[in-house]
Amino acid sequence: MNGTLHVTGTSDTNQAADLAERLLAGDKAAVARVISWAENADARFAALLARVYGRVGHGWRTGVTGPPGAGKSTLVNEVTKSLRARSRTVGILAVDPSSPFSGGALLGDRIRMEERTLDKGVYIRSMASRGSHGGLSRATVDACDVIDAAGYDEVIVETVGVGQAEYDIVSAADTVLVVLCPGAGDGVQAMKAGVLEVADVLAVNKAEMPGADRMLVDLEEAMHIRQAGRSKWITPVVACSAKSGDGIEDVVAAIERHREHLKNSGLAAVRREKRLEQVHRVLNERLGEHLWGRGGYGERARALLDSGRSPYDVVEELFAALLAQAARGRNGAT
Amino acid sequence: MNGTLHVTGTSDTNQAADLAERLLAGDKAAVARVISWAENADARFAALLARVYGRVGHGWRTGVTGPPGAGKSTLVNEVTKSLRARSRTVGILAVDPSSPFSGGALLGDRIRMEERTLDKGVYIRSMASRGSHGGLSRATVDACDVIDAAGYDEVIVETVGVGQAEYDIVSAADTVLVVLCPGAGDGVQAMKAGVLEVADVLAVNKAEMPGADRMLVDLEEAMHIRQAGRSKWITPVVACSAKSGDGIEDVVAAIERHREHLKNSGLAAVRREKRLEQVHRVLNERLGEHLWGRGGYGERARALLDSGRSPYDVVEELFAALLAQAARGRNGAT
Repeated sequence: MNGTLHVTGTSDTNQAADLAERLLAGDKAAVARVISWAENADARFAALLARVYGRVGHGWRTGVTGPPGAGKSTLVNEVTKSLRARSRTVGILAVDPSSPFSGGALLGDRIRMEERTLDKGVYIRSMASRGSHGGLSRATVDACDVIDAAGYDEVIVETVGVGQAEYDIVSAADTVLVVLCPGAGDGVQAMKAGVLEVADVLAVNKAEMPGADRMLVDLEEAMHIRQAGRSKWITPVVACSAKSGDGIEDVVAAIERHREHLKNSGLAAVRREKRLEQVHRVLNERLGEHLWGRGGYGERARALLDSGRSPYDVVEELFAALLAQAARGRNGAT
Repeated sequence: MNGTLHVTGTSDTNQAADLAERLLAGDKAAVARVISWAENADARFAALLARVYGRVGHGWRTGVTGPPGAGKSTLVNEVTKSLRARSRTVGILAVDPSSPFSGGALLGDRIRMEERTLDKGVYIRSMASRGSHGGLSRATVDACDVIDAAGYDEVIVETVGVGQAEYDIVSAADTVLVVLCPGAGDGVQAMKAGVLEVADVLAVNKAEMPGADRMLVDLEEAMHIRQAGRSKWITPVVACSAKSGDGIEDVVAAIERHREHLKNSGLAAVRREKRLEQVHRVLNERLGEHLWGRGGYGERARALLDSGRSPYDVVEELFAALLAQAARGRNGAT
C-alpha cells in the first residue's frame, strides 16, 4: 500500500499536497499512510497536519475503555453497526498500551471486527506503542485528527484498562465510554474507583449475567454521589449485551445525549483546553529531547551523579544552569 | 504520629538534622514522615534526601507486578516471611496507579499483611497517586531511597498491572519479579507480551491450578527465545503457590541469583543509568512547571490555538522562541 505513495521524481511538497488532498477526500490508503507517520514520529507529519487542520473538528470522538474481558471490542462493533444504520461513517482506533516493549498489539479481538472492514464507511486501525507511553497517546490524538480530517463522522478510540496511560488516551476524546461487566472480580473492583472519575457514559455489558442488576444500582448511586456540586452532566449507567444486541441503542443514545450536552455547554472551550494539554505535552517532550540530545545535559548529569550528589541536587544544578542561560538571553534581547 | 515531629521553636535546619538522624537510625515514624514529604512533593524532601543520600544503596530493590488477581500481595507476604527467617529486614511499598483520580489506594489485599506490621523488621506503606502518573513513579523512587537509607536490607515495591505506569514504577528496581497465574484469561493474555520484556524473574503463582504446567512450559520457551542475543541473564520461570507456601523459597532464591548476576556484571553502572533516567524525568517535570507557570507559555499557546494554528505549529513556535532566548543567553555569556 505504501509503495503507491512513493512516487519517484515528485517533490516532497507536491507529494504532501497530493497526500493531503487524498486524505481530505477520504482515501483510506492516505489515512493509513499519514497515521503511520504519526506513529513513527515522522517529521513530515506536522506539515501534513497543518495542511488539513482546518478540516479537523467535524468528527465526534468517543474514547472507550474498561478492564480486560469487559467486552469492549464486541460493544464497539455493535455500536458501529448502529451508527452505520444511521448512515454515519466511523473510524476506529484500537490502542494497546499494555505492551509498550513488544511493539505488537494483541489483536485477537479485532478479528471479530473484520466484517466491518468490508464496509466503505468504516476505517479500522490498531495502534501499539513503539516506545514511550507519551509517544502512544500523542500518536493516538494525531490519528484521531487524521481520521477526523478525512471526514469520518465518528472517531472511536478503544483501549484496555483504566490506568494513567489509558486515561491520557481516552481523555482526549469528547465522550468517554467506560465498559464494565459483572463478575469480573478483582480486575473490575480495582478499576472502579478510577473509572467513576473519568466516565461520561458507563455501560454495564453482559447485563444478562448474575450480579448485573446489583452492579447497575451501585454504579448509579455512585454517579449521583459524584455529581454533587460538579458539572451538570450526570453520567448515565446503561445496561447492555453486546452479544445479544440488547441495549446497544441505549448506549448510542447516551453518547448522543452527552454530545448535545457538551454542544450546549461550550464544546469549543472544552476542546481548546484539550488542545492546550496536547501542546503542553508535546512541547515538554520536544524540550526534553533537545536538552538530553544536543544540549549535553546527559553528560553533565552523569558527572554530577558520579561525584555522589543526590538526584534532586543534580536536577537543581542543571535547572539553575538552564535558567541562568535563558535569563541572560532575556537580558540580551532587551 | 506527625504531631510529634512538629517541635515548635526548633529551627527548620535543626528539625531536618534531627529527622535525618532518626531516619538513619531506622525510626519508622521518621520514615513515614519523609515518605509523606516525597508523596506531597514537599520542598523539604530534596534537602532531607541530600543529607542521607550517602547511606542509600545498601538495600536490594525488588519490583513486583502482574495482572490483578495473580496473587501478588499474598506472594509478597510469603516472600517477606522467608526473608525475615533469614534475618533480613524488609520495607514494602504497595503502589496503586490504577486510580489516579480517586486519591485512594485499594488496600483490601493489604489487610492480610497486617500481621507483618507487628514485626519490627518490616515496614509497610501504601502509595496512591495524588496527581499525575509521573508524580507517583517519582514518589515511589523517593520512598525506596528513604527506606533504603533507613537501613532496610530489602525494599519491595508492589504494583498492579504491567502498563507503562507500572513499568516506570518497577523498572527503577534492581530485580523485577512478574507474577502470573493460570486461568486468569484475557487479563493475563493481554499482559504477557509486555511482561516478557520486563521480567527478571517470572513466578507462576497458584501452580496447583489446572493449566499451570502448560503455562510454565510456554513461558520458559518464550524466555529462551527472548534471551537470544541479549544479556546473559535468562529469566527463570518459577512455579509457586503463595497460599500453600510451595515454591516460595524458589522465588526468593531466583531473586538472589539475579542479585548475584547483577553484582558480577556491573551493578553500579546499571544503577547509575537508572539514576540518570530519574534525573531526566524530574528535570523535565521541573522545566515544564516553570514554562507553564512563570514562563507564561500557556497564554501564548492559547492565543496561537485561537488563531487556528495546528498544535504542532504552536509547539514549534513556542520551542523556537525558547531556543532563541537560550541562544541569546549563550552568546551573552561568551
